[in-house]
Amino acid sequence: MNAIKELREHFAEIMRLHYIQALLSWDQEVNMMEYKGLEGRSKQVSLIEKLIHQRVTSEKVGRLIKEAEKLDLNEIESAMLREITREYNLAIKLPEKLVTEIAETSILAAKEWREARAKSDFSIFQKLLEKTVELQKEKAEKLGTHPDLYSTLIDLYEPGATYDWIANIFNPIKPKLIDFVKKLNSSSDKPDGSIFKKHYDEDKQFELSSKIIKKLNFDFGYGRQDKVTHPFTTSLASMDVRITTRTTEPFPDCITSTIHEYGHAIYEMGIKKELHDTILCTGTSMGIHESQSRMWENIVGRSKEFWMYWYPTFQEYFPENLKDVPMEEFHRAINIVQPSFIRVNADEVTYGLHIILRFEIEKDLIEGKIQVSELPEIWNSKFEELLGIVPPNDAQGVLQDVHWSGGSIGYFPTYFLGNLYGTQIYAKVLEKMPNLPDDYKKGEFSNLLNYLKEEIHQFGSIYRANDLIKRVTGEDLNTDYFLKYIEEKFKLIYRL
Amino acid sequence: MNAIKELREHFAEIMRLHYIQALLSWDQEVNMMEYKGLEGRSKQVSLIEKLIHQRVTSEKVGRLIKEAEKLDLNEIESAMLREITREYNLAIKLPEKLVTEIAETSILAAKEWREARAKSDFSIFQKLLEKTVELQKEKAEKLGTHPDLYSTLIDLYEPGATYDWIANIFNPIKPKLIDFVKKLNSSSDKPDGSIFKKHYDEDKQFELSSKIIKKLNFDFGYGRQDKVTHPFTTSLASMDVRITTRTTEPFPDCITSTIHEYGHAIYEMGIKKELHDTILCTGTSMGIHESQSRMWENIVGRSKEFWMYWYPTFQEYFPENLKDVPMEEFHRAINIVQPSFIRVNADEVTYGLHIILRFEIEKDLIEGKIQVSELPEIWNSKFEELLGIVPPNDAQGVLQDVHWSGGSIGYFPTYFLGNLYGTQIYAKVLEKMPNLPDDYKKGEFSNLLNYLKEEIHQFGSIYRANDLIKRVTGEDLNTDYFLKYIEEKFKLIYRL
Repeated sequence: MNAIKELREHFAEIMRLHYIQALLSWDQEVNMMEYKGLEGRSKQVSLIEKLIHQRVTSEKVGRLIKEAEKLDLNEIESAMLREITREYNLAIKLPEKLVTEIAETSILAAKEWREARAKSDFSIFQKLLEKTVELQKEKAEKLGTHPDLYSTLIDLYEPGATYDWIANIFNPIKPKLIDFVKKLNSSSDKPDGSIFKKHYDEDKQFELSSKIIKKLNFDFGYGRQDKVTHPFTTSLASMDVRITTRTTEPFPDCITSTIHEYGHAIYEMGIKKELHDTILCTGTSMGIHESQSRMWENIVGRSKEFWMYWYPTFQEYFPENLKDVPMEEFHRAINIVQPSFIRVNADEVTYGLHIILRFEIEKDLIEGKIQVSELPEIWNSKFEELLGIVPPNDAQGVLQDVHWSGGSIGYFPTYFLGNLYGTQIYAKVLEKMPNLPDDYKKGEFSNLLNYLKEEIHQFGSIYRANDLIKRVTGEDLNTDYFLKYIEEKFKLIYRL
Repeated sequence: MNAIKELREHFAEIMRLHYIQALLSWDQEVNMMEYKGLEGRSKQVSLIEKLIHQRVTSEKVGRLIKEAEKLDLNEIESAMLREITREYNLAIKLPEKLVTEIAETSILAAKEWREARAKSDFSIFQKLLEKTVELQKEKAEKLGTHPDLYSTLIDLYEPGATYDWIANIFNPIKPKLIDFVKKLNSSSDKPDGSIFKKHYDEDKQFELSSKIIKKLNFDFGYGRQDKVTHPFTTSLASMDVRITTRTTEPFPDCITSTIHEYGHAIYEMGIKKELHDTILCTGTSMGIHESQSRMWENIVGRSKEFWMYWYPTFQEYFPENLKDVPMEEFHRAINIVQPSFIRVNADEVTYGLHIILRFEIEKDLIEGKIQVSELPEIWNSKFEELLGIVPPNDAQGVLQDVHWSGGSIGYFPTYFLGNLYGTQIYAKVLEKMPNLPDDYKKGEFSNLLNYLKEEIHQFGSIYRANDLIKRVTGEDLNTDYFLKYIEEKFKLIYRL
């Protein structure tokens, strides 16, 4: 067996440990929310973390990488070696103690965060968030892949991206978004969102969300959909991808967020069999992942054509709320652009501002320019600056997201990158299939799915994000597509 | 750190791997029944199995055992060393390849068994059952803890028990049970079971079953209750014990089987904190475990006093079925003694015969006196001999139980041992608290639970089954208690 085959086999075992880790965390989110004692689980998680770390950093890996570099590799093998080398170079810089401490802290911090959010009391979470930030700083220092700590963390989620690269993308968009929100809200014919203040039965919402993803070709033989308080998607094996749905938020969050998670899941489910159980068997970056989820959620799932097909069914499910509301009004209502407090419920225009806020705060936090204790205040004043409103409490402000509790600092910017990648890819799709939206009117979504599978999903992590976007669209990330998309779409909706 | 403390720490990690293994299998049973591809999961299970095996058999363990033997140990430490030595001596005899092959085969065999049972087609399962039996024989040969292979397997589930010891217990009871069943059925005033042929809403059944275990002090902060096709209990950490419930079988199976699983769970939940994360943190044998589950299910859960409390609630839930049925009739009906095909639905008298059947078949199967291909025929003819009826198909015959598919051969006899242990322990309980059943009339179950916790649960595996039964009841296993219990109870019910 040559070195690359040996590495492949060695990392198949590591992938299995990652999948086991994913089950531990899926189960915690889905099944253990009411639990008093999570210590047992936290020790299991940190044990698996340790086993992964030991295997990635084993001397054998270093030796095999050197041997494999001398081999004549095909495209997949080269990509595999690139990713293995990356993981190895990252892991050997992290002491085992730090790795397990981060794992254990994240479980305890998630619990504190949950309580803090429920009680809207930042002080409950503050101590463990401080520890989390310190651990992430220490991790970034040890890794040292970029001159600045924040870029080192960003690179973990979006390989190749840096703070400067992202700031150069976000900065010019920021004022445009702020202006555009104002412009839309100056319209004299704004959509009316009052139908979403009504009650929608939770079981019916869940049923509809399942109906939709079934129609979108989610295969329940290789995955599940469960109820949770914070939706997410996770792979528990190459052919076991699970999404989760929340029915507690105002309608139609359940529907749109389920389509969003479907977009993540279908990416993972579409990776070609050749890559199963290898390090390449996952989406290539968080940004590209988000491009898929947000394309399905927003570009497809909030399009007029989509609702031309689905709306009659929704009217049947909720006649008391929708019987007398024309489809066009409903479609306008689910595309309302309005500054609001919660990121996950934000519209396509203000969403970017929510991300830019977090991006700027994370940068300062990691550089030590601001302290954890100052976060609530800074959050609120920045929020006013960007969105013109001030959160009434920390639950709707700095405490709303789970990410920091899990140590994910540097993750947020990939969400907005996803919007940008997604609109650019979709522009290409329309160039090739200009009549595609007509499919949606008939409840037909496989042409889009097959295109994405063919051009993106099947490759897993073979191509890095920047290579992939160039391969698919013929150019580097270009924010014009996003700006054009929102301008065209929302001027129509706001009748400007 | 001295040797026993080092061993304790080393085995804490092994326990964590066992808990992770338990989650993998809980999740498979609860969440993956509809899945097409289980290969990913089967590889994860066999990986954890391998990691456990490597850790148990590590050279370090052998060395530490020798060192610990020289130390002055307290009672808990001695028991710990006894169990660690046992596990080590078993594991070092098994090659890693055999261990992982058994793990992988069991997952695939469970799938085939499920399909075979659904289609009532033994041939679907035959090949993998043959492989399973061969693997278990090989395992028993390698272990060689007893002169005969079957005793070696039995000993894995009921430490210290042998085929001869059990045969000497079962053989004299066998004809007594057969006779007693006939005698009861000669009564001219038999209970009427027609109310169980009616329809009982599944959601209501589940709700009632949860209500009951809550009243029995099952703590949902440290455990869960989920729906499955075959009920079981599993520990995913010292303080995460999950039971499962089936609502598909004829009423009141959902209720009685939930109380049964509760009995297992409450044993695990009652183990004292000092033993958490140690090798002693589990019930001491399958027989003792079953003594607890069957005590709650049958002695308590099918007693008149229990139903004096619960029956009005059941009448409220199912007025269309129970409104006009007096409690006494209901109580008689849930204690009908009648030969039937399915073990898990069998009454307290015929149950033992179901076990003796399996015990005798397993013995011959492992000794090679009968072949897997002959099983359906042998099952049916033995069934007629013991219970006087012949299963109409293999789904209701040889294919009914999951155990063999998982490689559990030698497990069944512990079920009947559980009945015997349970009645003996309960006789002692009544000696100390003669008015205990009056508690049940008031929905008060904590006096019994506290007694069991105090005398049995808290000790985990500190005492072996035979030591424990002597400690609690003052004598060795004595089948007179069981025979007296069924005679007194059922003569009353059958008005003989």
